[in-house]
Amino acid sequence: MEEYKKTEKNSAAKKRQAISDSSSKTDWSFLENTYRDRKVLITGGLGFIGSNLAIALCGMGAEVIIVDSLIEDYGGNLFNIEPVKDKLKVNIADVRDESSMNYLVKKMDYIFNLAGQVSHIDSMKDPYTDLDINCRSQLSLLESCKKYNKDVVIVYAGTRQQYGKPDYLPVDEKHPVHPTDVNGINMMAGEWYHILYNNVYGIRSVSLRLTNTYGPRLLLKHNRQGFFGWFIRQIIEGETISIFGDGMQKRDFNFVEDAVRAFLIAGANKSSYGNFYNLGGTERISLVELVELMLRIYGSGSYKIVPFPPERKIIDIGDFYADYAKIESELKWSPEISLEKGLEYTFDYYKKYKDNYF
Amino acid sequence: MEEYKKTEKNSAAKKRQAISDSSSKTDWSFLENTYRDRKVLITGGLGFIGSNLAIALCGMGAEVIIVDSLIEDYGGNLFNIEPVKDKLKVNIADVRDESSMNYLVKKMDYIFNLAGQVSHIDSMKDPYTDLDINCRSQLSLLESCKKYNKDVVIVYAGTRQQYGKPDYLPVDEKHPVHPTDVNGINMMAGEWYHILYNNVYGIRSVSLRLTNTYGPRLLLKHNRQGFFGWFIRQIIEGETISIFGDGMQKRDFNFVEDAVRAFLIAGANKSSYGNFYNLGGTERISLVELVELMLRIYGSGSYKIVPFPPERKIIDIGDFYADYAKIESELKWSPEISLEKGLEYTFDYYKKYKDNYF
Repeated sequence: MEEYKKTEKNSAAKKRQAISDSSSKTDWSFLENTYRDRKVLITGGLGFIGSNLAIALCGMGAEVIIVDSLIEDYGGNLFNIEPVKDKLKVNIADVRDESSMNYLVKKMDYIFNLAGQVSHIDSMKDPYTDLDINCRSQLSLLESCKKYNKDVVIVYAGTRQQYGKPDYLPVDEKHPVHPTDVNGINMMAGEWYHILYNNVYGIRSVSLRLTNTYGPRLLLKHNRQGFFGWFIRQIIEGETISIFGDGMQKRDFNFVEDAVRAFLIAGANKSSYGNFYNLGGTERISLVELVELMLRIYGSGSYKIVPFPPERKIIDIGDFYADYAKIESELKWSPEISLEKGLEYTFDYYKKYKDNYF
Repeated sequence: MEEYKKTEKNSAAKKRQAISDSSSKTDWSFLENTYRDRKVLITGGLGFIGSNLAIALCGMGAEVIIVDSLIEDYGGNLFNIEPVKDKLKVNIADVRDESSMNYLVKKMDYIFNLAGQVSHIDSMKDPYTDLDINCRSQLSLLESCKKYNKDVVIVYAGTRQQYGKPDYLPVDEKHPVHPTDVNGINMMAGEWYHILYNNVYGIRSVSLRLTNTYGPRLLLKHNRQGFFGWFIRQIIEGETISIFGDGMQKRDFNFVEDAVRAFLIAGANKSSYGNFYNLGGTERISLVELVELMLRIYGSGSYKIVPFPPERKIIDIGDFYADYAKIESELKWSPEISLEKGLEYTFDYYKKYKDNYF
């Protein structure tokens, strides 16, 4: 495992180097000075983005505590934090448990709030659980901070899902919201609680509305949390990918390290508090093009076009890609890792560690 | 009480006459044909708007069932339905009780869904109760309909509150939402559940985003459900009205019979399903002007300007008035009763029946 850790560290360092070389606008030393020796809580920290964020924060010398309840079929996976497991603390707890959260938020400098039910499909089958996790527990976390830690900074993981089927493209933050599933509605409410508690109680909060995010540590166990992980798994398993609809739906994508960098920047910049920002990718490609790129990078595989299953058709949003000009101009974030490069990293990761993911 | 009922009926008939005389665009015979002998459930039907709606529907020959849980300090009041108490059925139950609702929604043709926690102040003090009533119970009602009555039509009482502090005036439906209190966030989610279940499951639903509504049967017990009822009560009790801020905040108002007519029209028109509509008033006046008009109509009273209490200041939205062009053009609804006329009716009502209200 030591060897594994070294590889991970080196590869992270190499990637960082690659970013810096390509005229990155990110001031890494500012971020490192911001988070070094600071207490950071990551809810949902064993999940896909949370664990990547935890690894980045440990690398910067932050004192990281992860809260995760490892709910079956959600993204939490202890292997996700293998490279830093001795550098952080894992506290297994459910964000819906107010009493635990009351204790855990105390003395924190930053909370990256990524715990959530993220499956659109599951939210339609069981809207109450989605409500509990995406609304009630957000209120509960904010109430805990209001009572026990008003000085914390919270970065919330929001979603493009609240925009629903776009009226125009690319979708900016002025686009009307009209979510197409229960998850989108509840995550919209969850975001607004954060903005509200910022405005009313001065609990500094910012929300990032994520687009499709991919990369190492993405859940591959089932296909209910988006198509990306499922495509990766099918390619690795040598199965034929099924693309729903006509495959012409255009999307944008963020490599997870770009998303992680956005979280770090949003938390560190005072001017972000009380705001919400779209993330987005530079490339906008159809699902067919995405799959063809995946197959080329992986070196083998096949796909077919099939009709939408009815329960997915009714919540499908067609083309979607985000305008990220607001965060680019205000916080100097933009995506830096190309889809091609990101896919290479992703396949490399799962080739090595797939046994820990499915 | 017979005499009371006759008076009520006559005065309703007179009002109807007055409306027709003034070139009303409403096709009352269409509405009467729509609702006659139909089964109608009104959640929150003992409350302010719900009871006025119940009275109107009884007058049209609908078979009305009211569901209300008479929660202390909410708007429910058995006296509200005094004129029609022998013509409808009251079922005391909480909309959060899914099992009761599963039974009650069966065989209904229409549901007017007005049960809610409507105090902005209370929602900040106890966000969980607001969440339960305004989110969970809405989901629960819709799930009941999905399981037991997919053919029903639901009209939801939404609110202008989700717009928050306006970016521009008058506020139309394209205005971005940025609610300023927990109640606004949760009612926004409640509205979206209805639109979603309409779009995904075909449960025909429409939402009306109400502005300040006033008239007979408004709660006057306390001042946490808006200033209007409280002003009325203070005038009747001979107390000096306190206007918060500078009193220059402009608002618009709907007399409750105009709001009731909007509910009836929205439920009866197929083209409304899946949509949301602002209601709004014709007059836009400052709070000082409103109070001066109230005092003139009542014939006595006084007011003073006082600073905002902090818990109200932080959720105040300044000027607000709605653009109701969408419902006017699509459903032919517009407000028909002037503020002066509406205030006369309101004071007449409370002069007679104030003992039942405070």
